[in-house]
Amino acid sequence: MNETIATILRRRSVRSFLPDPVGQAELESMLEAGRYAPSAMNQQPWHFTAIRNPELLRKLEENCKTAFLESKVDALRETAQQEGFTVFYHAPLMVVISGDSGAIAPQYDCTLAMENMILAATSIGLGSCWTHAVMMFHATEKGKAIFRQLGVIFPEGHQPYAAAVFGRPVKPYPETPLKNADCITIMD
Amino acid sequence: MNETIATILRRRSVRSFLPDPVGQAELESMLEAGRYAPSAMNQQPWHFTAIRNPELLRKLEENCKTAFLESKVDALRETAQQEGFTVFYHAPLMVVISGDSGAIAPQYDCTLAMENMILAATSIGLGSCWTHAVMMFHATEKGKAIFRQLGVIFPEGHQPYAAAVFGRPVKPYPETPLKNADCITIMD
Repeated sequence: MNETIATILRRRSVRSFLPDPVGQAELESMLEAGRYAPSAMNQQPWHFTAIRNPELLRKLEENCKTAFLESKVDALRETAQQEGFTVFYHAPLMVVISGDSGAIAPQYDCTLAMENMILAATSIGLGSCWTHAVMMFHATEKGKAIFRQLGVIFPEGHQPYAAAVFGRPVKPYPETPLKNADCITIMD
Repeated sequence: MNETIATILRRRSVRSFLPDPVGQAELESMLEAGRYAPSAMNQQPWHFTAIRNPELLRKLEENCKTAFLESKVDALRETAQQEGFTVFYHAPLMVVISGDSGAIAPQYDCTLAMENMILAATSIGLGSCWTHAVMMFHATEKGKAIFRQLGVIFPEGHQPYAAAVFGRPVKPYPETPLKNADCITIMD
């Protein structure tokens, strides 16, 4: 097994982070990985907003959490009601990839870019967790207003399509849960 | 730069393939990489349909191409009208990742899984190209009927969310086009 595939298999969602910041070189390496994702007709319709400011992260976290608390999905609502639950898990970095909603396939493009960032992070020892609450919250009028109020402004015509938090995982690095293998059809 | 990040930066969309088949070990390695992607609440709401049958690929290709020819997006229609254009590029393998449309975030989950497969493929020397025509064609009533007629049956409640072709690239491996770097905001 080569190193790339080993990284892919080693990745898992991390929900407990050390407070150490993600350094500039690490962040730039992850962002470059994101920018090299495939995109429909090579449109690259994305913008990467990387937030490390602790106070801003705290305010966004408080607000985005309400998207889970008010969700119609039972599992999300129940998760959010657990004591001490946070949607950013006190991670020192949150990245939003916004996309031009008029592009050919912005949700696909931004998601592909985020998986590149997640794998790049894994490869340099950082943990990550997809943060769906950001998209859910921003989809509401209240959410859009709060992002603007907090100064998190996406380019004209953009909306967030992918978000994840990153940081150094609390050890031991959690094991990857068993994955279902009964989901394959090969037609030869 | 580590090997994972080097693979991410080396990947590019390949549109010219040798006829050599993708071997069983290669395919299984790619599928395993796909299965280890993150998914919302670890639902893994996906099914991987890997098609290597040349006759089936040819029939699907002919049909999926009509989705581009009839697209409202000028760029897709113009591309499809070019002489010799094919949506599968004569690749020996096409993989569709279908997802349960009732899951929390099936489009995200299947897209993350496909990027894992694409990077795993890159790491073992295979080229790949996202194949949006599959989703576009299956979204039509005619498309759904043809998939069924050809025996490509997805699990109950599933629809295709991600598709890509894979194979050995014709050398020289195409260079990665320049990527826009002016798409980043860092908030410290």
